[in-house]
Amino acid sequence: MGRWEPGARERLQAAALELFATRGFEQTTAAEIAQAVGLTERTFFRHFSDKREVLFFGQQEFLQAFIDGVEAAPPETSPLEVIASALQAAASFFPDERRSYSRMRQSVIDQNPPLQERELHKLAGLATTVAAALRARGIGEPAATLAAESGATVFGIAFTQWIRDGETRSLAAIASDVLRELLDLTGAATASRPFP
Amino acid sequence: MGRWEPGARERLQAAALELFATRGFEQTTAAEIAQAVGLTERTFFRHFSDKREVLFFGQQEFLQAFIDGVEAAPPETSPLEVIASALQAAASFFPDERRSYSRMRQSVIDQNPPLQERELHKLAGLATTVAAALRARGIGEPAATLAAESGATVFGIAFTQWIRDGETRSLAAIASDVLRELLDLTGAATASRPFP
Repeated sequence: MGRWEPGARERLQAAALELFATRGFEQTTAAEIAQAVGLTERTFFRHFSDKREVLFFGQQEFLQAFIDGVEAAPPETSPLEVIASALQAAASFFPDERRSYSRMRQSVIDQNPPLQERELHKLAGLATTVAAALRARGIGEPAATLAAESGATVFGIAFTQWIRDGETRSLAAIASDVLRELLDLTGAATASRPFP
Repeated sequence: MGRWEPGARERLQAAALELFATRGFEQTTAAEIAQAVGLTERTFFRHFSDKREVLFFGQQEFLQAFIDGVEAAPPETSPLEVIASALQAAASFFPDERRSYSRMRQSVIDQNPPLQERELHKLAGLATTVAAALRARGIGEPAATLAAESGATVFGIAFTQWIRDGETRSLAAIASDVLRELLDLTGAATASRPFP
């Protein structure tokens, strides 16, 4: 998404979200979105291939932020510390100014099964890509996939919490807490009795 | 799936898988499956609502095996030990006799994106159901979701390994090993330096 500046793309996104939330995703056309901000349908399609793209624009950059976080971790860092670094990088992609946008976007997605489907694929794709980045650092399997899936899970839980009504902590702070909970969970298991 | 006996349902399943694998899922009709084992299309539809159901039959029983494993764990068991119990119960749903069937089924699914989609939903649904079963045991959030997602991840990795060519260990043994790797991963992270 690059910088968050009030250009045509951002105006179209804001108008689209407003319309999706009030009228419903299916009931809104690209022409109506464009019209709402005094732009033409043609301009809409210069920015987005279809109205669904409005909701998933920036996905590639988000994935890249996650991967940048993996790559920024010093060598010899343990897999879950690499994930911690990736989570912090990914969280910076969602500053507090984006919280209300993200919250509204989620409520649109929650009401539309095909959009939920795509969102589910996004998280699955995230884990796959992060696992590949971990293997590129020399981390073997199944450690790479376990760490990557854990990272995607922690991100998903933290993000859901971040957009909850009344939540004020940053996404980075929540992600740290959730990761800590994961470590406590497994630490508690390791400390007690051996597994079968 | 109940018992694994050579009745009409099992013959239909075996024939369907054979046809899906050789001709392709899309190219195979319910009538052809029935014909292959000397049964009528009508009989096919008494057992399965459509040809896709052949591949997903028994899903509810699998989920139930997982949940039974959660419920079988003694009270006060830590969340990940509950997951260990659930994994063992779920693994018993896949005895070695089913390995070649599962392997063939997976290759059919891997070649068909809509089937992959459904399979992805199945694992996501597993995590959601297991998280609810953990909450019913008094485990709070995010621990319940973290443990449930970890369980689904471990199961997914173990299952993929179980159907790999040349693999001879039982699914239960592989699941134990993968869970141990998860504990090692997080144990190593806890032992080193604190997270941000």
